[in-house]
Amino acid sequence: MKGYTQVYTGSGKGKTTAAFGLALRAAGAGLRVYIAQFVKGMKYSELDSIKKLSDFIEIKQYGRDCFIFKDPEAEDIRVAQEGLKEVSKLMQSRKYDVIILDEANIATYYKLLSVDDLLELIQTKPENVELIITGRMADPRIIEAADLVTEMKEIKHYYQKGIQARDGIEK
Amino acid sequence: MKGYTQVYTGSGKGKTTAAFGLALRAAGAGLRVYIAQFVKGMKYSELDSIKKLSDFIEIKQYGRDCFIFKDPEAEDIRVAQEGLKEVSKLMQSRKYDVIILDEANIATYYKLLSVDDLLELIQTKPENVELIITGRMADPRIIEAADLVTEMKEIKHYYQKGIQARDGIEK
Repeated sequence: MKGYTQVYTGSGKGKTTAAFGLALRAAGAGLRVYIAQFVKGMKYSELDSIKKLSDFIEIKQYGRDCFIFKDPEAEDIRVAQEGLKEVSKLMQSRKYDVIILDEANIATYYKLLSVDDLLELIQTKPENVELIITGRMADPRIIEAADLVTEMKEIKHYYQKGIQARDGIEK
Repeated sequence: MKGYTQVYTGSGKGKTTAAFGLALRAAGAGLRVYIAQFVKGMKYSELDSIKKLSDFIEIKQYGRDCFIFKDPEAEDIRVAQEGLKEVSKLMQSRKYDVIILDEANIATYYKLLSVDDLLELIQTKPENVELIITGRMADPRIIEAADLVTEMKEIKHYYQKGIQARDGIEK
């Protein structure tokens, strides 16, 4: 099966959720999935569900617990960049059919990852691997390199009414 | 926990996938999820995954196998409308924390469901239930009634290159 590079970007809801849904769907079809979460160290409810599907889905977080986007420290940058290298090796190992780089776009925007390194990963993707990159602020060069790009656009959001993220719904 | 009404619409990819991802996340948090699929009778890889999470997620299809959008028959309309009634009862039973009406928007667009009936469902939603409605062509009245609306916008799509839907990725 030929694989493609998909990007989910934009400021709207559903980017990471769509990627997790895709992992669920792929696992259901017996495909092996690797999820790399960049700049996220928080505990997500997804992790609990994913454990139940662990024969098919592996997940690893390449980021610290209390990451502050606007001011990344050298350690944050090191963790993210080592993470990308690890994912690249795993991708070349052909052990996985679907590889998800969750929030990798925002990681390039805040200079945790370089666009060049992410581009290289896309360009060296084995033909049969499906690569999914999420996160707002996708670089134009990443969009250019991708086969499918979807922008999640916020039309209306109850957060504007001041509601907090809820367990099992947003996180 | 207060619940809201979310709508995922637009012609881009990821609407149903985001809803399934949300189901996965909610189930991981121990929330009970009901997924009603309208105008879809096809076998999805998601169904296989969902079986593994079946303690928390229930799914039912309210549509026939070979539904043709542009020319719904009386039987298609009956199945969809009975489905909406059933979902309404289940919603009032408080058995579920999250209710997903997959492709209900497109079902209203093609007159399988009336916008009035879908609006009534939104308006009678118990406070603690999270309601998620997917499908392109969401009616403006549904958008108005929702708390959160995300448009999945197609920026670039490899289908334009003539590629078929693939098991575990698109279906």
